[in-house]
This record gives sequence, structure tokens and C-alpha cells, in this order.
Amino acid sequence: MTGIEERLEKLGITLGAAPAPAANYVPFVLRGSELFISGQLPMSDGTLQYQGQLNGSGDDEIERGQAAARLCAVNILSQAKAAIGDLGRIEQCIKLGGFVAASTDFTDHPAIINGASDLMVAALGDAGRHTRFAVGTSSLPFGALVEVDALFHIKPLD
Amino acid sequence: MTGIEERLEKLGITLGAAPAPAANYVPFVLRGSELFISGQLPMSDGTLQYQGQLNGSGDDEIERGQAAARLCAVNILSQAKAAIGDLGRIEQCIKLGGFVAASTDFTDHPAIINGASDLMVAALGDAGRHTRFAVGTSSLPFGALVEVDALFHIKPLD
Amino acid sequence: MTGIEERLEKLGITLGAAPAPAANYVPFVLRGSELFISGQLPMSDGTLQYQGQLNGSGDDEIERGQAAARLCAVNILSQAKAAIGDLGRIEQCIKLGGFVAASTDFTDHPAIINGASDLMVAALGDAGRHTRFAVGTSSLPFGALVEVDALFHIKPLD
Repeated sequence: MTGIEERLEKLGITLGAAPAPAANYVPFVLRGSELFISGQLPMSDGTLQYQGQLNGSGDDEIERGQAAARLCAVNILSQAKAAIGDLGRIEQCIKLGGFVAASTDFTDHPAIINGASDLMVAALGDAGRHTRFAVGTSSLPFGALVEVDALFHIKPLD
Repeated sequence: MTGIEERLEKLGITLGAAPAPAANYVPFVLRGSELFISGQLPMSDGTLQYQGQLNGSGDDEIERGQAAARLCAVNILSQAKAAIGDLGRIEQCIKLGGFVAASTDFTDHPAIINGASDLMVAALGDAGRHTRFAVGTSSLPFGALVEVDALFHIKPLD
Repeated sequence: MTGIEERLEKLGITLGAAPAPAANYVPFVLRGSELFISGQLPMSDGTLQYQGQLNGSGDDEIERGQAAARLCAVNILSQAKAAIGDLGRIEQCIKLGGFVAASTDFTDHPAIINGASDLMVAALGDAGRHTRFAVGTSSLPFGALVEVDALFHIKPLD
């Protein structure tokens, strides 16, 4: 287990099996120093954990949305581990693409996608600092609340 | 004609003229080994073929959506051909970005974007296996049903 | 001041301080020759200038949307300047990702994102010619009308 996975364990996160893609594509492509990760949903143990749409109502919807985004980021790291074995090989998280299922009057997309951004920095430290977009979508696969994809730069093997 | 175009012909697909961009930008940028393709709409012979929004009603809407996504992928390959001449120079389709005009309760985005993913693998074989995202959008240019953009890695010229 | 900033000044545009990101991420990542810019909103002097949703009504909504997209592009250039100092180091604008807060029946996304595309070409000339996507979103951060992210290729330092 790498230092990064120990850090995740302290956050109560164990990287599980990387979720299989929902269709005819691959969860990651590693090409030279670039690692592309397909859009990840808030799945855990093979089940979608967060569904619906954020619409600015409900006391805990920001927290729910953040938890969903965080779970997407956990699945991104699971895919990265499946791709490169040791997360210590991550040189930089370059970009997260954050999609939030949101009504037309929802405005807190940045707070939601912070759930993913914060997890990335908690896990990877400075190497987790990334560019991103955060936008609303009318709907997401299987009714998911959040979807996040990612691009990493990877250190060359010695 | 390359082997890839022969394979497409067996699928009943002839790559036509690459659609012109709808505005002040370019349909592709080739930079070193990376080929970026602008978001393609389901156009054929200069006409948008699939319009509207997927909302979970209608017997054939999955099939219509898939056909739209497949046509976006055909146009992506037309642009790639315009960029590099020989599709055999494609080393890998790295990523597809799949946008589906969909209502808030639509859930089958992966099935729709499979129309593009399946065509890419049918045309390019293993080199067609890619990462992707599939998300819902409130609307797309000119009322298009689907929009897909792409990133390829290209083999260097000998 | 570089030639590019002089050109912008003739367009009435002075690059201000690069807007701070709305959350726990970074506004740009420069990695080798690639410069990634986070999604930029139509902010000016720290205030969001264009809010709402485009819905095909209102005489001037195309103009408002274009002005919003143009301001996103100005902020992209401000971030690029913060990243590389001299905009003359831009070799090519590779890609713009254009998100428009739009109703289900809005169809003029390309015209809106032209506000960003045209500014990029006005500022950078041929180096500003880029690939892009233009899509509708149900909503954007803080009620913004448009969000645009970008990827540039940068010339190596001598």
C-alpha cells in the first residue's frame, strides 16, 4: 500500500475494485505520460449511491452532492490505481470535468464539485491540485447526481 | 481507400465531405501526435438528421439516439480523414465527449453514446477503444439530438 | 505590453487581474507545452456580469450571450497571462469548451460561443484558431450565462 492509500484510509476510504464501464468503452487510456479516466459515477459496491437532481431545496442537498462528487473522485483514483498500480506515480492531476444534475435555478455547482476537488488534494497533496470545470446537466446516466472525468500526468517508470 | 474505410463501407458507411464548422473555429487541430476534433453534430449531406430531446417516451427513441450518435462518430472520422488523409494513421481514439439532449428524467445516456463508441470500435478495432463521458444537456446547437467531440493519437509519419 | 495586448487594447479590452477560482482548485496548470485553463465565468472586477438562461426570447439575448462568452475568453487570456507572462508565447489555442445556460428549445449555441471564438482569433490571429464544442447546460455556477474552458499549446522558452 502506498502512502497515498494510507492517507485515503485515514479518511475512511479504501479503494475498491474499479467500476466497470457502463458500455462499450474503456475506463482509462494511458498514453505516454497522460492518463485519461472516463466519466465516473457515484458508484459503490456496484450500486449507484446518489441519484436525482439538485434544485436548491432540501437542507442537506449540498452535503449529498458533495458526497456524490467525492465518491466519483474515489472511483477516479480506483481507476488510476488499476491503470498504473501505484498512485505514487501520479505527477499531477491536470483536470477534472465536473457535471452536476441540476435544475435551471441551481447555483452551487462549485461547492458540489469541491467534494471531488478536496478529495483529490487530500489524497495527492500538491499533485492533486487541478484545473476543472463545474457545470449543470439536465440529467446523467442512470439518474446519477454527479459525474466527473479526469486527466492525470504520470511519472515515467524508472 | 484504406482498410478502415473498407470496413466502414461494409457497414454501409461512406465518409463524405467533412462538415464545415457552424461558426468561427476550425473542425480539427493536429498538434504533434494529438488530433483534436470539434464537437460534431448528426449531419448528413449538409442537413441535420436528428433533432429534439430524449425524454424516455417513444418506442424507438433509444434507436434514434444511437443512430444520431453513430452519425456524429462518422463525421468525426470524416474530419479525421480530412486532417490526416489516411485513417490508418490513427494510433488510438483517446476520448469521446458525448452530449445528449435529454430531459431531467432520462437515464439511458450510455446506451445512446454507444452508437458512437460502437462505430469507433467497428471502424478502428482495438485502436477505437476510448475513454468517454456521456451526459445530458438541456439543448444542443440547432436542436441537435447528440453532439460528440474527440481526441485521437496519431502515428508519426515514417 | 506585447503585441497581443496592444491588439486587445484596440478592442477596448485591458487584461485585468486573473479571477480567483471559486473553489479548491487552480485556475491553470502548465505542463510541458500544454496550458490548461479552468472554466471561466463572465466576471469583471470580481463581479459576475451576465446571469440567467437563454431561451430564445428577448431581442438582445444573442448579443448578451455573445458578450458573456467574450468576457469568458478575456478571462481565459488573463489566466494565460498569469501563467506564462507573455501571451506571445501562445503557439496555438487548441480547444475551447463552451457551456451555455440554455432552455430546452434554445438553438443558437454556436452564435453565443462565437463571442469567445471571435475574441480568441481577434487577439491571437491564426494562433487563436481552435477546436471547440458548444452545448447547452441546465444551469451554471452562480447563475452564470456562459462558462468556457481552454487548452493552449505554448512555445518553449528559448
